[in-house]
Amino acid sequence: MVSMTATNGGRSRVSFQTDPARYRHWRLAIDPPVATLAMDVQEDGGLRDGYELKLNSYDLGVDIELYDAVQRLRFEHSEVRAVVITSAKEKVFCAGANIRMLATSSHPWKVNFCKFTNETRNGIEDATACSGQTYVAALNGTASGGGYELALACEHIMLIDDRSSVVSLPELALLGVLPGTGGLTRVVDKRHVRRDLADYFSTRSEGVGGGKAVAWRLVDEAVPRTKWDETVAERAAQFAARSSRPLGQAGIRLGPLDKVRADDSVSYRYVRARLDHAAGVAEITVRGPDEEPAVDAVAIRSQGARFWPLAMTRELDDLILDLRTNELELGTWVLRTRGDPYRVLGYDQLLLAQFNDWLVGEIIGYQKRTLKRLDVTSRSLIALIEPGSCFVGSLFELALAADRSYMLAGVIGDGDPAVIGVSEMNLGPLPKGNGLTRLGTRFLGDPDALAAVDKQAGELLHAEDAERLGVVTFAPDDIDWDEEVRVAIEERSSFSPDALTGLEANYRFAGPETMETRIFGRLSAWQNWIFTRPNASGPDGALLAYGTGQRARFDRNRV
Amino acid sequence: MVSMTATNGGRSRVSFQTDPARYRHWRLAIDPPVATLAMDVQEDGGLRDGYELKLNSYDLGVDIELYDAVQRLRFEHSEVRAVVITSAKEKVFCAGANIRMLATSSHPWKVNFCKFTNETRNGIEDATACSGQTYVAALNGTASGGGYELALACEHIMLIDDRSSVVSLPELALLGVLPGTGGLTRVVDKRHVRRDLADYFSTRSEGVGGGKAVAWRLVDEAVPRTKWDETVAERAAQFAARSSRPLGQAGIRLGPLDKVRADDSVSYRYVRARLDHAAGVAEITVRGPDEEPAVDAVAIRSQGARFWPLAMTRELDDLILDLRTNELELGTWVLRTRGDPYRVLGYDQLLLAQFNDWLVGEIIGYQKRTLKRLDVTSRSLIALIEPGSCFVGSLFELALAADRSYMLAGVIGDGDPAVIGVSEMNLGPLPKGNGLTRLGTRFLGDPDALAAVDKQAGELLHAEDAERLGVVTFAPDDIDWDEEVRVAIEERSSFSPDALTGLEANYRFAGPETMETRIFGRLSAWQNWIFTRPNASGPDGALLAYGTGQRARFDRNRV
Repeated sequence: MVSMTATNGGRSRVSFQTDPARYRHWRLAIDPPVATLAMDVQEDGGLRDGYELKLNSYDLGVDIELYDAVQRLRFEHSEVRAVVITSAKEKVFCAGANIRMLATSSHPWKVNFCKFTNETRNGIEDATACSGQTYVAALNGTASGGGYELALACEHIMLIDDRSSVVSLPELALLGVLPGTGGLTRVVDKRHVRRDLADYFSTRSEGVGGGKAVAWRLVDEAVPRTKWDETVAERAAQFAARSSRPLGQAGIRLGPLDKVRADDSVSYRYVRARLDHAAGVAEITVRGPDEEPAVDAVAIRSQGARFWPLAMTRELDDLILDLRTNELELGTWVLRTRGDPYRVLGYDQLLLAQFNDWLVGEIIGYQKRTLKRLDVTSRSLIALIEPGSCFVGSLFELALAADRSYMLAGVIGDGDPAVIGVSEMNLGPLPKGNGLTRLGTRFLGDPDALAAVDKQAGELLHAEDAERLGVVTFAPDDIDWDEEVRVAIEERSSFSPDALTGLEANYRFAGPETMETRIFGRLSAWQNWIFTRPNASGPDGALLAYGTGQRARFDRNRV
Repeated sequence: MVSMTATNGGRSRVSFQTDPARYRHWRLAIDPPVATLAMDVQEDGGLRDGYELKLNSYDLGVDIELYDAVQRLRFEHSEVRAVVITSAKEKVFCAGANIRMLATSSHPWKVNFCKFTNETRNGIEDATACSGQTYVAALNGTASGGGYELALACEHIMLIDDRSSVVSLPELALLGVLPGTGGLTRVVDKRHVRRDLADYFSTRSEGVGGGKAVAWRLVDEAVPRTKWDETVAERAAQFAARSSRPLGQAGIRLGPLDKVRADDSVSYRYVRARLDHAAGVAEITVRGPDEEPAVDAVAIRSQGARFWPLAMTRELDDLILDLRTNELELGTWVLRTRGDPYRVLGYDQLLLAQFNDWLVGEIIGYQKRTLKRLDVTSRSLIALIEPGSCFVGSLFELALAADRSYMLAGVIGDGDPAVIGVSEMNLGPLPKGNGLTRLGTRFLGDPDALAAVDKQAGELLHAEDAERLGVVTFAPDDIDWDEEVRVAIEERSSFSPDALTGLEANYRFAGPETMETRIFGRLSAWQNWIFTRPNASGPDGALLAYGTGQRARFDRNRV
């Protein structure tokens, strides 16, 4: 069960931690090599009051469980090679995001909800592409809106052919908003539905089923009810047979995080955040490993979820989700690291040496997705590289993900100066959503500068060299440091949060575009705009009018 | 002078027609092979009341003159091979879009203004790339905001190095909005400014000048005042020398359009629109040529602006701008053609045969840009392909640009059935902003379907074949036609205009992304969102607070 935790201040916070024993909305059944995730949303199980989750409609709580299941399938179930997503209810697969929930939500809640569901669906695609776990959507009833979008995230879509079950994107016609979880993008860019047919489909609330849905590429196959179970099983077995996932390996258990949450701090073993509500700043520190790296994949497996790269990534992932959802006023995140840079490099070397081990592959993939989550976070990110920090390799990605970085040139007292270091981890395994590395995006159109940085891989660099190579933004000396950093942070808090969000979204996604950048860059921006418009969210808008029997009243002016 | 024309109904309309003799804000001087466009905005020359255009700040009227100048330089001045954009004022190049104008404008006005300025700047880049007229920005004073964005559209940016002149994007810091005319995109994607430096630059209202502006790639060179004039002249001459524009050809004159504008209709020689305000529909009909095509380039030149492809394109361009700006409630545009399809094919063949003639190249380029204008128009586009129509080749692009097309299968009375036809004009010369043809975008990921269509080039197709090949959306027969078309149009008018705008923007730009699609797809969507947010446009927002001495009050929640 996903819970809202009451806090001291009386506000309630969303927790993203759960496990299958606590699921209220999904049933996970494993029959190797196939897992079946059956959606069975509990109507009165909404995360907040005021709406009923009928017809397998979902809210953030339902999606938090889905995210948890997708993660656990990767790490805990090495034996699973195909995942069937279906419904445990009769005649309906999923009715999409709950309308009443959307209609009664604040603008930030709607946007944050859409972002998380997008990330979860991208994670499903990533599991198919990178984890040898192919997702198959078995639509045993109608899939509407977000329900169809969930299917679109699967590699293969099967629709029951019973003359009544359809797929549909009714948002535009019924709610005056867009299918916001990547649906538009996936329809034309992933499934290559012809754009005029896509236009028709997306304005027709009744949806499309059977042979026409196949002919238009909306689904991959329409299967008669009499052959449904056997065909689904057959397809899952076929996809499982193609998996590159190794056999005979044991998964590792993802135990509960050791997390302490207070009003002004969040603490885990390796990650902590100080929340300064007066300044609107979260100061996040990621600690490097406490001990030397394990010697091989067997030793990594025996450490399991305690293995530093995995433990730290889980904590960071949870922190990002917590702060994004629960701390809207903390508009600037200051990123620091503490620890031994050589030891971090050692862990990077270990991971790269064991790259072909499935568990190591999963850990690196999880680092990749968590860094991507940071990239699409609508907060200003400022990295502070100080003496005692360990911004090297995989942790240096945090500084590269930041909108700006400041590196202290000089020492404090008798200590050693700050260093940064590029490792092979910065040169490929952790790409951004645009398909490039963060370094590649940084030096877009300047291959010489990129090559000069590549050459430094494995070396630790002081501030002067880092600045000269362009891998940090500024390198103030110890005299200027405090003032320059203070101004950068305070200034950020003085700007319009909306304009910062738009600025960051545009600058972070320079370079090539992918389905991912399109979802977070373009589709999300349009949806955000539509969400704020009276035609959707006003008192006469479509979201509130839905289900009342009243028609929405639109301002007909085109913008 | 750009004028607001009073109409019968008392509303005033914007006219996009002007010529150099009427310019109030620009001085065009031609000294072959170089033209100089000097900005000299008349403070009291605003298109509407309520603001003063100080410091070469601009409004829509200033940009309409710029658009006119860029167009005339292409067609009327074959001798011009480089264009210097500079300021006729001391110490200031251009302060960008007028803030007070933005603050007092409606949301649709702001968005439409940004779109037109974006198109004009893209047109400047297109002239450099395709017309052998390289634009050089000679910033003889500070270029802020939209002023710097105008410079970014030029191929080469020169900044006077006088210790006070800078380039800047102060919108975020001062106004709580984004640089909306492609600035963000051009900074990182065109000029490859490093993204953390771009972040710093875009939050620093003071701007950056001199050597730092060069080092950061914000400008190409900083030139001391003493060497300014000679260096600008030298650079212009260098770019002119590289031009592929032929020598010794005479330009053609673009005379005034023969336009009759009424409340419920717009008529030109080849294009007319019936405006149905009750239904919210503009019915647009484009007529094919009256006579057989000229025999060669000499004959084309002698027809000049009367040559059908050019005359029709100018009319369509003006109509799109007129309706977009003046008729916000007409949310659906129904596109029809009338004429002899063989004759249209004949003109296409003539254009393609004379492709290397500079004037023919300019005409095809203008068709390309006008179709792109249609692509980014926030109106639903429905093409009706009926008997008597001539949707072939270049005119078939109108149907391919539409969100949907309906083609009548069968005849009306004794007449001939409707036909469509693909020509070589559909296979390359008229690409969309994404760099693909409209057919290529339509059959994204289905190369077999595209190849099957390519093979039909030069043939006229009836409805059944057109539907089978997928080049029209639906082909109802004469029994269903009226009802099906009526429903499609009426239904469109019943949907949320905002959601339609978002849907169309996403579906029209499937496939690869370019700087253009990023500007119109992503940046514009973010800017639209920011414009509607109280932090920008509310009573305490930054746009209204600017210049009052009061600070904007922001809702600090991140979305």
